[in-house]
Parts: sequence; structure tokens; C-alpha cells
Amino acid sequence: MNRRLLILYLNNKYISCMNNFEFRNPTRLVFGKGQIARLSDLVGQDKKVLLTYGGGSIKRNGVYEQVIAALKGREITEFGGIEANPDYDTLIKAVEICKQKKIDFILAVGGGSIIDGTKFIAAAAKCDCEDTWKLITDKSFKMPVPIDFGAVLTLPATASEMNNGAVISRRATKEKFAFHNPDGFPCFSILDPTVVLSLPKKQISNGIVDIYAHTLEQYLTTCLDTKVMDYWAEGLLKTLIEEAPNLMSDNPSYDSCANFMLTATMGLNGFISMGVDEDWATHMIGHELTALCGLDHGETLAIVHPGVMAVMRQEKHGKLLQYARRVWNITESDQEKAIDMAIEKTENFFRSIGKKTRLGEYGIGNDIIDTIVERFEQRGWAVGEHGIVTPEKTRQILERVK
Amino acid sequence: MNRRLLILYLNNKYISCMNNFEFRNPTRLVFGKGQIARLSDLVGQDKKVLLTYGGGSIKRNGVYEQVIAALKGREITEFGGIEANPDYDTLIKAVEICKQKKIDFILAVGGGSIIDGTKFIAAAAKCDCEDTWKLITDKSFKMPVPIDFGAVLTLPATASEMNNGAVISRRATKEKFAFHNPDGFPCFSILDPTVVLSLPKKQISNGIVDIYAHTLEQYLTTCLDTKVMDYWAEGLLKTLIEEAPNLMSDNPSYDSCANFMLTATMGLNGFISMGVDEDWATHMIGHELTALCGLDHGETLAIVHPGVMAVMRQEKHGKLLQYARRVWNITESDQEKAIDMAIEKTENFFRSIGKKTRLGEYGIGNDIIDTIVERFEQRGWAVGEHGIVTPEKTRQILERVK
Repeated sequence: MNRRLLILYLNNKYISCMNNFEFRNPTRLVFGKGQIARLSDLVGQDKKVLLTYGGGSIKRNGVYEQVIAALKGREITEFGGIEANPDYDTLIKAVEICKQKKIDFILAVGGGSIIDGTKFIAAAAKCDCEDTWKLITDKSFKMPVPIDFGAVLTLPATASEMNNGAVISRRATKEKFAFHNPDGFPCFSILDPTVVLSLPKKQISNGIVDIYAHTLEQYLTTCLDTKVMDYWAEGLLKTLIEEAPNLMSDNPSYDSCANFMLTATMGLNGFISMGVDEDWATHMIGHELTALCGLDHGETLAIVHPGVMAVMRQEKHGKLLQYARRVWNITESDQEKAIDMAIEKTENFFRSIGKKTRLGEYGIGNDIIDTIVERFEQRGWAVGEHGIVTPEKTRQILERVK
Repeated sequence: MNRRLLILYLNNKYISCMNNFEFRNPTRLVFGKGQIARLSDLVGQDKKVLLTYGGGSIKRNGVYEQVIAALKGREITEFGGIEANPDYDTLIKAVEICKQKKIDFILAVGGGSIIDGTKFIAAAAKCDCEDTWKLITDKSFKMPVPIDFGAVLTLPATASEMNNGAVISRRATKEKFAFHNPDGFPCFSILDPTVVLSLPKKQISNGIVDIYAHTLEQYLTTCLDTKVMDYWAEGLLKTLIEEAPNLMSDNPSYDSCANFMLTATMGLNGFISMGVDEDWATHMIGHELTALCGLDHGETLAIVHPGVMAVMRQEKHGKLLQYARRVWNITESDQEKAIDMAIEKTENFFRSIGKKTRLGEYGIGNDIIDTIVERFEQRGWAVGEHGIVTPEKTRQILERVK
């Protein structure tokens, strides 16, 4: 038994107690109908505001007008055009603007990509180093206290509105990495569920898969007798399963939108990760598929997650069975069959909201699998809880979902 | 139909959507074995520290020594003797010490009473008004930004370690009131589950009842389709039911202590109250029983809560049925019988951990019921969600649990 498996074994069998943890999340959440108007209280009258947004959908759905009306009187500079999977070379242009105009508040209006990009802009603008790519890639780099920033969320998915993490891409090198900044929480985030009504169904289904995957990454790991966290994660998963049909219908209800928006934020703001082991293999593998093949983030997760469940079923056996019993209400007495059914139900759930779940459906073949495995080997990456997802396991996972 | 019932009816039948809400909780939670030593990082080296505690149990269970060792080098003033249900006349002595010694950090070491008392001390010491009782009783009073304070929790129950509320008693007038301070969150709280091992069983059972009641106050209200919050509240209730036998045994496991401690904090830190209606009738009535008869807080809740369920069953019908089905797994098809069973199971749960559930068991009679109802009438109090628990309903509740 190698060391990694020994640790896993010990964790499962002998020292299966809750991990020590530290939790802090100072973001103010302002939730509900009509709350965008609250910007007039939340952003100081004397602030020089940089307004960051994406491709301009906020100008078609009425959000932009509400934001501008609420910010009346402030000096506003606009920076639109931040792309999905925000690009480093786009963001450094905004960093220059912040320095030139002495911006002292940034308001991100958009989804996870806009807020992630804003986190980078806010930190890099307070950074003296020459190569700001180090903020993202050099884990030993001391992160600066960022320019104060807030968010108006328009696309529930990533929880970037209430955490201190961000994922930045660099198209020039086909790379995509996450970074965290201890002081990088939004000061506030405004969540108005009515914005969900104007979203294309593809973005809603991407959001559902992303939130579902975030929750699984913090749940389908070691059995550590973390009862509260287990119930809470299961609550998010069950809410998503229950709300998905209404959200994908022609007329989603306000309550479905509100529950959806709340699962998104609660799925990755630290509220369900207290004392648990975390996985993140699905995300790490998925990021490569986005970087190499241009798939949406949610699309990659719908493919990879069932593969991770299937290939890592022995290591995740206890939690997979609990997932089968408590999330999918599977009463089948044969444990292996119950787990098979839970994996199948997960894949079917993703398909029910219009997601493809196989690489072949996107025309992705063996060459990409080879490239991903080689990248993980070169970087010395073993991902998943306790590094159990080795490059070889990564290959098996991708082969499983060809 | 009077106005109050009309609002309730409208809420239930027509506008049953999640309430708008605002959430913010900046407290840093430091959780796990051996974490008291972290005080050496968390409290600045140059701080003049007031150490607040209660009857001295911390000097018998080893916590005091760990605290003093971790704070080595700081100027420390001790203020012990804060009682359960902290008394205003005790606390104002500590306020004087803070002013005289220019205290700039207060460390509360104890349970909810010590942390509650510390919240009052920290605010009152920054207050110029002559009558500091106004902080508690005058809702229009502008609360001061308190002296920075943190906590080492020794008794899981109230969640005072991660919220901005406190309950202060005044024995001279037999009164007990809650107050909230927007800026009154602990900077940090250290939660080491091993402290639970040294607690008397009576304190553990009081804690279990208190946490259970906090959760019900935020759950057994209007049906507003708040799926995430419902699942999360049910998760806390189920965790308490599952862990209670181990916690009340001679050798509680570390995991039971950790889950217990986490339910306590999560039960009243705002994490389960997003967008829901809140009740608090049980607590308001219970506070009177403590103020008038000296019962422990947890003892009062074990009596009053089953009474509230029984008397308010029509107004709380939807949630009571959900509680029966999802927390107690009651499959009885007759809805009224299912609710009866859930109320009975709740009372039996409290009795199973050694709590009395009837006023008569404490020798409390009609005179006290009359006094409480008269007090509510004089204060013009209608408690519960949307004020549905009128003084007359309060009388029925207390009659029900005689």
C-alpha cells in the first residue's frame, strides 16, 4: 500500500474525525427583488468607480440602467468586454485604467467571469510587481489588499460573489488557473433573482451543473462524520434537482430563481466546506478541456463528474452510497448496484437539462486525453482529496467518458 | 378576518415567496482540537486585554491555563464572576474597568452568557450616555462601535460566538431583554470541541434544547418555498437528534462534540434565516420564566416549544407537517395525526435528555401564567411571526403545558 492510499485508509478507518478548519466570509449579501437600487447606499458618494461587465447583455436586460440610476453622482468609468473565462490580456488593460484614473471602487456587473476578472483587476492594480501573472501562478506571492469592490450578480453559478477565489485564463498560452486572495472578498454582492428570467437556457443549465459539481467536490470525499456539512450539501443537491425542471421551463417562478441563486452562492462560499476533505479533480480536469477545446465550464463538468464517480468509486465508496441513499432515495440493497444507479441518475440529470456527457459528442478524441495527462504529469499534479486522482487515474476518468 | 390573520393568509396562499434579506457575518471561526493556542496570533501583542469569564470552571478544566499561556506578553486584567443570564449590575462594573484601564481588546472565555455580557461591556464602554440600560431597552438608540472582542467558547448553545445579539438580565427589576448591535460581532471565536468533554450533562442538555429551539424558531413558520433554508434547518435538527444519545453518554466521541458545537454556531448565526419568517415566541415566553422563576434558559424552552406547536398548529400547519415527515420520518397518512406524533416526539426528545416539559414539574402555577400574560399585555407584545402569538395565545400555550 503506497503512502497516499495509506493516508486515505487511515482517514477512513481510524481517524475519521472532522478536520480542524478556519472560516471567515465578510461579504454582505443583499438579496431580493428590487435590490439593485441599494447601490446608492452601498457605494460611497465620493467614489471613483470602475464599472466592469461583459458582452453587453446587461444593456439589453435592464440591469445596466438600474445600476447607472443607483450610482448617480459618482464618477464612473466603464470597462466592458470581459469575456467568459476572463483573459489575462484583457484584464491588464483595466489594471492600467485603475492606476491612471485613481479608481477607488470597482463594481462588477455580471456572472462569475466578470467578478473573477474584477478580483484580479482589483488586486493587480494594488501590486507593484512587473509580471502580474505571478499573482495567479506563484503560490508564494504575497497577495495585495485589493481595491474595494462589489458585485451585481446576473448569472448564478460560481459563487464568486461571496468568496475570495477566481479563475483566470490566458488564451495566448492556453492556460487556466485559480487563485485565492485572503483579503479578496467582495465588500457586498447584490442578488436579484429576477435577473434569472432573462438568461438563455444554456447559461442556466451551465449554472446548475456548476453548482451541482461545486457541491459534489466538497461532499463526495472522505467519510469524516461531518453530519451538518453532509446534510447541507445534500440540501443544495436536492434543491437543484427539484428546481431544474421549472428553471428550464418557459416561465420559471420567482421562487425557483431565488432558490437557484441561493444554491449558487451557498455552494462555494465556504458554508459547506467546514471540516470536510475537498476533491476538485473534476474542476481541474474540466479547466483543461476549456483551455484546450473551448468548452463552457459547465459543459466540461457534466462530462467529467460521472467519470470521476465511476473511476474513484472504491476510494469514495462510503460517500457515494450515502449520495445514492439520501440524494436519490435509492433503496436497492446491493451497495454496488445502488452506486451504479446513482452515477447513472447523475448523468441523466445533466442530460435532462440539455448537457452532453461524453467527449465524443464534442468530437474530442484521444489526442486531447494524452495532452491533459501529459500536462498533469509535467506539473507533478495529483488532484482530488489527498491527491488520490493521479495522472493515470485522470486518464482512466477521461477514457471512461469518451 | 383581522389584519394580522389576513397578512398570514396572504403570505401562505398568494405571496408565498422568499423574503428579501440582507446577510453579513464577519466573525472568523477557528475550529478544532488545540486551537486555543491560536490566540497568540489572533490577539495583537500590544493589546490591553480584559479577560471575562464566569464562575471559574475554566480554572478547573484547563482552558484558563491554555488561554493565559497563549496570551503571554499582553497586559491582562481579569473580570470573573459573570453569572448565567448575565446581570446588568455586574456588567457595569466591567464597563468602568474598561474605561479606567483603557482596555482595547476583550476576550470572553465561556458560554453564551459570558459572550453576551461581553458584547454589552464592549459597547457600553464606548458609550457616552448616562443610562447604559438604554442600549438594551431603547430600540431607537444608536449603538456604538464596540471595543474589539473575541471569544473562546466553552459551552455550545447560543451561537453568541458568531452573531451580534445578546440577552441581558436585570435581577433588580426581574427583567430580561435581547439587544442587537450591527457592529457587535466577535472578531474571532475559537471552538475546540474537546471542551465539551468536561461539561456537566445538565449544561449539554440545556445546549441541545437551546440549539433545537433556535432552529425551530427560524423553521416552523410560514411556508415560503425556502428550500435551501428548510433543508439546512432540518439538517441541524437531525444532527442534534442523532448525536444526543452519544453526547449524554459517559464518553462522548470527539465527532459528536464537534457536530454538537457546529450545530450550536450554525443555529443562530444567520445561516438558516435567509429569506424566512422568524417566530421567537418560545424564546420570549421562556425569557419570562427565567426572569420570574429562575429556570435555566434551556429548561424554559423544553416546556414552551411543544406548547407553541400545539396551540399554533393551524397557523404553522404546513411546516409542522413537513417537520413531521422530514425530521421525524413520520409516514402516517392522516395529517393531523402526523402532526400530533411530531409534537409528541419533540416533547419525548427533550425528556430523553433529562428535561422536564411541564410547568407543574417545577411547581409553577397559574399566578405566573397571569403575570406573563399581563406583562405581554402591558408591553403591547404580540410575538411570533407576523405577531400571531397574541397575549391570549400566550395564555393558551402556557395552559397547555401546565
